[in-house]
Amino acid sequence: MTITPEDLVEIEAIKAVKYRYLRAVDLRDWELLESTLTEDATAAYAAGKLSYDGRDAIVGFLRDSMPVKEMLSAHRVHHPEIELTSPTTATARWALDDTVIMPASNFQLRGAAYYSDELVKVDGEWKISHTGYRRLYEETVSRDGVTVTDHWWADEVGSA
Amino acid sequence: MTITPEDLVEIEAIKAVKYRYLRAVDLRDWELLESTLTEDATAAYAAGKLSYDGRDAIVGFLRDSMPVKEMLSAHRVHHPEIELTSPTTATARWALDDTVIMPASNFQLRGAAYYSDELVKVDGEWKISHTGYRRLYEETVSRDGVTVTDHWWADEVGSA
Amino acid sequence: MTITPEDLVEIEAIKAVKYRYLRAVDLRDWELLESTLTEDATAAYAAGKLSYDGRDAIVGFLRDSMPVKEMLSAHRVHHPEIELTSPTTATARWALDDTVIMPASNFQLRGAAYYSDELVKVDGEWKISHTGYRRLYEETVSRDGVTVTDHWWADEVGSA
Repeated sequence: MTITPEDLVEIEAIKAVKYRYLRAVDLRDWELLESTLTEDATAAYAAGKLSYDGRDAIVGFLRDSMPVKEMLSAHRVHHPEIELTSPTTATARWALDDTVIMPASNFQLRGAAYYSDELVKVDGEWKISHTGYRRLYEETVSRDGVTVTDHWWADEVGSA
Repeated sequence: MTITPEDLVEIEAIKAVKYRYLRAVDLRDWELLESTLTEDATAAYAAGKLSYDGRDAIVGFLRDSMPVKEMLSAHRVHHPEIELTSPTTATARWALDDTVIMPASNFQLRGAAYYSDELVKVDGEWKISHTGYRRLYEETVSRDGVTVTDHWWADEVGSA
Repeated sequence: MTITPEDLVEIEAIKAVKYRYLRAVDLRDWELLESTLTEDATAAYAAGKLSYDGRDAIVGFLRDSMPVKEMLSAHRVHHPEIELTSPTTATARWALDDTVIMPASNFQLRGAAYYSDELVKVDGEWKISHTGYRRLYEETVSRDGVTVTDHWWADEVGSA
């Protein structure tokens, strides 16, 4: 597939909506988060273990599970592999690193994953119509040590 | 705002100067750092708690506080949200993750923040005219555990 | 050096091959890894302490040292500084953060480095012809604490 300079403008806009999405999550800016999703957007976090249907359900889940101040978080994406599948649709793969801290309980989660997103261009603006990730690994950290709680190969048939 | 392929060339150059700035910081290359800043550049690290006026003051502060070998550091930026505000001015928001290690004292700092930078194009070259960040969180790590020392909401009126 | 929008298309393709290379490493997809390297590619990991000559040697080393499931890893690159040195050759510098976890032995390695890569365009496709990195730092983590095992300045003459 040949990419043109004009395609790069679309790809840059697609990256930008993901950056706004993550900034909204980490700063608990739910109005900003809404603006990055289509009304019928779906989410499948943790390889579908946490699935949500519709923008309201996604935003509601994140708002309820990510309180201000009691929980601190940083979600960082890397390695965008973006494909324009039509003038108004695209897929995006991202490598995610995330850290979640709950200071009061001395809890910390660190994880790595791959996001697989789908996007549509509506009225000239790219929005996320599906987002989901599968863990490379996830671990919790406490005074007593480190426990790996999930990883990429955890769901394989016959895995230990 | 509509972006053109030519704008992307400017945006790429703006990203490049930030990458050089951070490489200079982490490799303690103060001459390289100077080349990324305007002479009258200002800095407001940690939401203004550490403010510096002029390139010499910024470079001097970083050189004095970041010794070679006794301190190891990695500052990584993600999620560039860059806006060309005129042909020769721009703003840039970045998500930062930073790690600072002092092996001799078993000290480690880990943090996350948002940078808000301003840039100007002088003689065809983009330079940083203002840089500053506000913490999402900051924590120190030692044998005895982890302490959160700063976070995004720490300065709110009435915060606990 | 002046960059054109068409150059950005090449630069985007050069980034993409690195993202595939790292995805192949972290997902242990050795066939995908092979597709990112020239047959005569060379590697010099850890400032040349680990050197490999030829694609088969590189892939063989990584396959042997990175088992599925017993080892979990996330290699993330940032700050691409890419230079097109001719229509079919390029150099790329990247900032790397890597985490390697061996859950069974409670082992964790965290590191930061700079990659220096060389690429060639063969039959319209960019491939990596040389890859290598030098550590900013590297540390292992266990229940008993943290040990810095390598860093940027470790090889300097007369270093402690």
